[in-house]
Amino acid sequence: MSAMQEVPPVLSEELDIVIPTIRSLDFLEQWRAFFEPYHLIVVQDGDPSRTVGVPAGFDYELYTRKDIERILGPKASCISFKDSACRCFGYMVSKKKYIYTIDDDCFVASKPSGEKIDALQQHIRNLLTPSTPFFFNTLYDPYAQGCDFVRGYPFSLREGVPTAVSHGLWLNIPDYDAPTQLVKPVERNTRYVNAVMTIPKGTLFPMCGMNLAFNRELIGPAMYFGLMGDGQPIGRYDDMWAGWCVKVICDHLSLGVKTGLPYIWHSKASNPFVNLKKEYKGIFWQEEIIPFFQQVKFSSDKLTVEELYIELAGKVKEGLGHIDPYFSKLADGMVTWIESWRQLNPPAAEGETTAAKGTGAGGKLANGH
Amino acid sequence: MSAMQEVPPVLSEELDIVIPTIRSLDFLEQWRAFFEPYHLIVVQDGDPSRTVGVPAGFDYELYTRKDIERILGPKASCISFKDSACRCFGYMVSKKKYIYTIDDDCFVASKPSGEKIDALQQHIRNLLTPSTPFFFNTLYDPYAQGCDFVRGYPFSLREGVPTAVSHGLWLNIPDYDAPTQLVKPVERNTRYVNAVMTIPKGTLFPMCGMNLAFNRELIGPAMYFGLMGDGQPIGRYDDMWAGWCVKVICDHLSLGVKTGLPYIWHSKASNPFVNLKKEYKGIFWQEEIIPFFQQVKFSSDKLTVEELYIELAGKVKEGLGHIDPYFSKLADGMVTWIESWRQLNPPAAEGETTAAKGTGAGGKLANGH
Repeated sequence: MSAMQEVPPVLSEELDIVIPTIRSLDFLEQWRAFFEPYHLIVVQDGDPSRTVGVPAGFDYELYTRKDIERILGPKASCISFKDSACRCFGYMVSKKKYIYTIDDDCFVASKPSGEKIDALQQHIRNLLTPSTPFFFNTLYDPYAQGCDFVRGYPFSLREGVPTAVSHGLWLNIPDYDAPTQLVKPVERNTRYVNAVMTIPKGTLFPMCGMNLAFNRELIGPAMYFGLMGDGQPIGRYDDMWAGWCVKVICDHLSLGVKTGLPYIWHSKASNPFVNLKKEYKGIFWQEEIIPFFQQVKFSSDKLTVEELYIELAGKVKEGLGHIDPYFSKLADGMVTWIESWRQLNPPAAEGETTAAKGTGAGGKLANGH
Repeated sequence: MSAMQEVPPVLSEELDIVIPTIRSLDFLEQWRAFFEPYHLIVVQDGDPSRTVGVPAGFDYELYTRKDIERILGPKASCISFKDSACRCFGYMVSKKKYIYTIDDDCFVASKPSGEKIDALQQHIRNLLTPSTPFFFNTLYDPYAQGCDFVRGYPFSLREGVPTAVSHGLWLNIPDYDAPTQLVKPVERNTRYVNAVMTIPKGTLFPMCGMNLAFNRELIGPAMYFGLMGDGQPIGRYDDMWAGWCVKVICDHLSLGVKTGLPYIWHSKASNPFVNLKKEYKGIFWQEEIIPFFQQVKFSSDKLTVEELYIELAGKVKEGLGHIDPYFSKLADGMVTWIESWRQLNPPAAEGETTAAKGTGAGGKLANGH
């Protein structure tokens, strides 16, 4: 298949880059050639009186906690404070079709050939080509140059489905949990795997928010990074939470989630002792959370992501509330998030409903699970 | 995780190489350094009076159609003739724990560094390390050197499950169906993807028999390559059929199926016109076959692969018989195959039952589908 020309388009008018930060954004210097055509949404975490420096020449808007509270009022409670989970506020205020979010300790990686990787270009390629969640293609992305579906791949599934999420990876410091960081302090990821693949329907994955792009119109309202950080019992599960929610909704709506290329260079391991403190409850809670998500079934009359997300909030309260009162609070946060989303994205301006409805591809073979 | 030392063991006493052929096996010269320590089982297809040359120095046994008929009597009807599907007879006569099967137009491939790839060594590594079918690891094989489970991967699933199948890939000529061959006559696979991954539970894949290894004790009785070639309405679906059957049984028993490394060099594209003739019924039949396999549920009291395979034969007759009388014949062939397997592998000599029973890993999280 060749659904995409060699070089995907620059989508300046259709994509925002969202960056959560507490420091000056000097890391952007390295990304200048790739990011300068795009608009940045900077979500400043922590003390709103600090000044976050943005290198000259970048087009950006910046929100502090004060701005979030001014815009959302009491509903600002759904946006985490003192945690990079605050980035999801940027998804909400954006008016673009696509979002790319990146951490400020992520730099430009290189291919084994030495060529610098334009991460955004690869994400755009991933988002503009279909996904194949219903059957595994052993040669990976069938829409990549020089590639196709292999013998035995059902022809009725070769059109694929729209791609909602493109999950990129990390060279150098891998995204390990605190126990693994403690056990393997010097392990570095040096393996460049030249592939993009669709995560099959019915399979959950650990979504990392460090290098992540998505179609906001298709899945934006489900990209809530939860309640983390200040006043909450856990941290470092913000992107995981979003990943589980997003994946079950994508599966329900027949939307695709891809992982693999592009790589960024992750420069600095976070402190494993601090991480352990943030994570430890999540580490045992997830043993119950994941079976919960594995069995989530939505009622078939819910057609939009917003409706499904509200339904999911109800299931979270009912199905996870017994673990800790936190999950009841989180479920309320999910509802507040959708209310805030609706406030900033009133239905008329929102393409999401139609887009989600238009994904009937796959037919008989798509309903196998 | 580092469940495997850098270089996996040579398993001369535990692994047979099965090669179906109609010509002299000169291709073995290129594999000499890697295959010479192993015993070969050559299954000679077509005219039994021809002499197939095996280069000096290889330890082998060879079976012609006459041998198959002598050994199996009337049950030889379950072994295809004039089709490489006959290779599965080799799986049945082997007494070893592992099988590697390779086509005689497959040569030694090279890594991007130029290093020759010892395909068998990589398959052994894949088979001796666990699989992770219940949750996706974004950095691929967590048991590979320098790799691990990423943040958010449930700890209860990190032990993995036993690996039953290792599906290797092909550089140069990709494994395309006839329509794709016709449309893209010059496409070559030049993309070396440095990864092994587990195909998630609940996801089917197109299993190619060109470069395939498996644990015969765990899954052997399900590795039936069906009825193809002489007297049958289709060809080139032998490995696909085996792949669908194997995958649903592995999913039921919590056994792992891996795909990715190693690559072999596939030298020659088969004739697309001949292939189209063999394939065309399969191309539309599979549109019904795959939904059938996607919804197969086994009764929970069946514990061995043989029992499950017999149960599957019944389901095939009932669920696919309406497509064509061929499927009724194929279902009978599946039963005859198990009878033949039992004849050559009487229960006392068979480790399969115990092995399959011993795979209770995963617990609560493993039952999510």
